[in-house]
Amino acid sequence: MIAIIITIMVLELRAPAQPTLAAVLKVAPVFVSYALSFLVAAIMWVNHHHLIHAVHSVTARLLWSNLYLLFWMSLVPFVTDFIGKNYREPMAVALYGLDLCLCASGFYLLRLELIHQSRHDFAMTEYHERIQRKNVLSGALYLLSAPLAYFSIYVSFFIFALIPAMYFLPETKLVDAGETI
Amino acid sequence: MIAIIITIMVLELRAPAQPTLAAVLKVAPVFVSYALSFLVAAIMWVNHHHLIHAVHSVTARLLWSNLYLLFWMSLVPFVTDFIGKNYREPMAVALYGLDLCLCASGFYLLRLELIHQSRHDFAMTEYHERIQRKNVLSGALYLLSAPLAYFSIYVSFFIFALIPAMYFLPETKLVDAGETI
Amino acid sequence: MIAIIITIMVLELRAPAQPTLAAVLKVAPVFVSYALSFLVAAIMWVNHHHLIHAVHSVTARLLWSNLYLLFWMSLVPFVTDFIGKNYREPMAVALYGLDLCLCASGFYLLRLELIHQSRHDFAMTEYHERIQRKNVLSGALYLLSAPLAYFSIYVSFFIFALIPAMYFLPETKLVDAGETI
Amino acid sequence: MIAIIITIMVLELRAPAQPTLAAVLKVAPVFVSYALSFLVAAIMWVNHHHLIHAVHSVTARLLWSNLYLLFWMSLVPFVTDFIGKNYREPMAVALYGLDLCLCASGFYLLRLELIHQSRHDFAMTEYHERIQRKNVLSGALYLLSAPLAYFSIYVSFFIFALIPAMYFLPETKLVDAGETI
Repeated sequence: MIAIIITIMVLELRAPAQPTLAAVLKVAPVFVSYALSFLVAAIMWVNHHHLIHAVHSVTARLLWSNLYLLFWMSLVPFVTDFIGKNYREPMAVALYGLDLCLCASGFYLLRLELIHQSRHDFAMTEYHERIQRKNVLSGALYLLSAPLAYFSIYVSFFIFALIPAMYFLPETKLVDAGETI
Repeated sequence: MIAIIITIMVLELRAPAQPTLAAVLKVAPVFVSYALSFLVAAIMWVNHHHLIHAVHSVTARLLWSNLYLLFWMSLVPFVTDFIGKNYREPMAVALYGLDLCLCASGFYLLRLELIHQSRHDFAMTEYHERIQRKNVLSGALYLLSAPLAYFSIYVSFFIFALIPAMYFLPETKLVDAGETI
Repeated sequence: MIAIIITIMVLELRAPAQPTLAAVLKVAPVFVSYALSFLVAAIMWVNHHHLIHAVHSVTARLLWSNLYLLFWMSLVPFVTDFIGKNYREPMAVALYGLDLCLCASGFYLLRLELIHQSRHDFAMTEYHERIQRKNVLSGALYLLSAPLAYFSIYVSFFIFALIPAMYFLPETKLVDAGETI
Repeated sequence: MIAIIITIMVLELRAPAQPTLAAVLKVAPVFVSYALSFLVAAIMWVNHHHLIHAVHSVTARLLWSNLYLLFWMSLVPFVTDFIGKNYREPMAVALYGLDLCLCASGFYLLRLELIHQSRHDFAMTEYHERIQRKNVLSGALYLLSAPLAYFSIYVSFFIFALIPAMYFLPETKLVDAGETI
């Protein structure tokens, strides 16, 4: 489903009306917002894939959390399109941050259930809690980006660029790579 | 395919033309109808998944029923878009209820075939018949919502909210969770 | 991929602009063309599924044939939209028939390669050749529907309705059901 | 995901507004650009499928390269739509060539990592390096097509037609077919 979300975003990329440099440049902010959301969605894809593989038993709470997460993820193409067309408007920037914050809250709830399921496996619990802290930090920063957009949209954009970088910093060990991404 | 249907509905969510609160609020009914259909489609997804796994032999009648169900499910994005844009119009509300009633009829036919296939397994038959009753109730309520929309659309909206709640009430036992969803 | 094609066709179903009976009826031909193409695509889906499962070795010719088939199938949403909006125009009707004829030719080439691969298995060859005859008949009828549309579009529409019926006639034996669909 | 990209391109194929021969012919360049991109995407699909199957261990570098490749592939529908609507404009032709060149660079990086992983298997390394040379040649030709479009778009179109032909030349041996496609 996340693959579909990524490709839906491409659909929002309308080809410029005229083949002039000016027309192509006008599409640039839409393109940049697409590239950013592509990166965010790809990180969520890999994260979600790892999460689902760590599931022990499918509980009602797990299904609920997953649906809650997928709902906010399914709105990413919508806020991407909105910010791409109104990248200077605090409201568009705030909505973008808010949706990504809600996605992070979905990941939080999913992992909370996983931590509960693996409560007898100390190493696993520690591993999940380490990623959970990173996730809480991302969510808090995205939440902050919403009100900050009304002061300066550049601070919010800095946060939007910072969080993927936080997930994609080169790993020294291959084992770590599998864990943190 | 149901995953694709969900994401197609996101495509109907057009970003508001202007970044003003008024423009965003104007999109609100479309958003609410999307959220409702997301929930309905998710419940159908899980239900369909469980149904397909209970199939013993692929018969012509099963294929027919499945195609019939998928056809009405594939129209969910269409009626969602219609009700989102005309949420005060009885016709849009009635068409929405009608399509979901036809989806329920598809589930009914599919499960009827499954009950036939598991007729020698008493526990399984009882299990299927319990869900079938719930399904018939949902279908009847959706059917009722269509004429009721011409008296008061709020009654229909109440039905639309009631049925997902009926499927998603918290379960006390995990085993039950897997069964009823 | 065929699932995606089916759902893409739903996207072409635009919700009527106004919630009046007249506006809804205006969408009717688009709806009928969608229902027809849904049926055709579903039959192709099941057929393609059976074909791919009967493959012994993936040859260059098989890949070519499959791509050729997928190309013409990928145009089904396009001709469906065109016929839905211009259902009284011979050209739209002819293009629809032509694309389905080309799809049939793709199935012909794929099965030709399969017959070649199963040439030492007499029962399998006979089975494939029986379906091949049905396929050639469908293709020939679709080809005929194109010029006939310029005399009477109703003859073409009769052909379009006849062919799915030919594939979906109730089967007396379950084993046959699996074979012919 | 590549299947989704192919079908997204169909969505760009808008049915002509009127059912006249002139209107249909006006869509012809869009149709030709679709057919070309379908072929290119299909070749990339098969190539990517073979690449992923040859992976030994999923490293951070591999994930990065794959995301980089998918990003440029996801833009193929965008440049296809642009060239289809502006096939006489050097800029549209150049952007098309540039995106395909960037896709080739993604394949290059992915295979570089694979060559590194199979460095102790001499036959495998030789096999990968042979395809890598073909890939570098394709990428270089696509890169050349961009500036050449400003001299003559026909030279660029010749390159666009030449590269798929290079991949799809009939193979004498079935084993080779599996390798080179």
